[in-house]
Amino acid sequence: MDTVTSAQVINKEGLLKHWQGHRNLTRRVIEAFPEKELFGFSIGGMRPFSQLAMELLSIGGPAMESIVKNESSPYSEEAFLLSTKEQILARWDEQTAVIATYFNQLPTERFSESFNLFGQYAFPIIENIFYFIDNEIHHRGQGYVYLRALGIEPPMFWERD
Amino acid sequence: MDTVTSAQVINKEGLLKHWQGHRNLTRRVIEAFPEKELFGFSIGGMRPFSQLAMELLSIGGPAMESIVKNESSPYSEEAFLLSTKEQILARWDEQTAVIATYFNQLPTERFSESFNLFGQYAFPIIENIFYFIDNEIHHRGQGYVYLRALGIEPPMFWERD
Repeated sequence: MDTVTSAQVINKEGLLKHWQGHRNLTRRVIEAFPEKELFGFSIGGMRPFSQLAMELLSIGGPAMESIVKNESSPYSEEAFLLSTKEQILARWDEQTAVIATYFNQLPTERFSESFNLFGQYAFPIIENIFYFIDNEIHHRGQGYVYLRALGIEPPMFWERD
Repeated sequence: MDTVTSAQVINKEGLLKHWQGHRNLTRRVIEAFPEKELFGFSIGGMRPFSQLAMELLSIGGPAMESIVKNESSPYSEEAFLLSTKEQILARWDEQTAVIATYFNQLPTERFSESFNLFGQYAFPIIENIFYFIDNEIHHRGQGYVYLRALGIEPPMFWERD
């Protein structure tokens, strides 16, 4: 084996740190919602932010686990049907740790391999992971509008610690 | 020079393709707004989507140019104060090409280097670039809520061609 390290756009640790930074910010957005509005408020027929959070919970950790185990299973929100903000935040923290555990087990060599996520989205693993992050940013952006419409100042976009 | 290529999480071409895919989707969101609502509609005191698009125009291309030229200049929206959807879409296409030109000139070695973006955000270049992409996804997510509130079906999130 050659030990030369080529310059890289980003390494594995950097990408996980980036993702976890986004998860920290999304956690703050969940926290910013009053309990009632987290479950009941929405605009234009979209889902309340609690349901968007449950979707994000159903993707990140479960998807990383299935990628690492190379077992494609169907998408399901069943394990994350939650009814209080406290429950959502607790599962959020739990899944942040799950993501880190499996992400760290994924060899760099596999990022360019195709994986049939949830039995229906066959893309390179890096594209799957970008989807998890992008989908979180996308839904969180919706959450910012909900908060503004409720007269609540959302957390700063660039705060990720 | 060693010609061994180490496995990478993502390569330069892949990251540009990812970004350009997001730009294609954002372009569709701009197009989906009726002219009047693009400039006049907003929720909760936020900016109309035209102003968010002008912010995005003021970041991507100009920032990539300043990174490649290693010249940090202050953030300004002055070059992108536009008043019709047609103008915004034309400048969007122009800046998509500008981004590709400068992105391709940036050596992979520089992605981990720090750059003081707009004279005030000193971060590794890869983090700057992720910020450009993430900020676009974030504001576009807001645009989705505006469209839904207007009774307009937004484009599919996963369509990037």
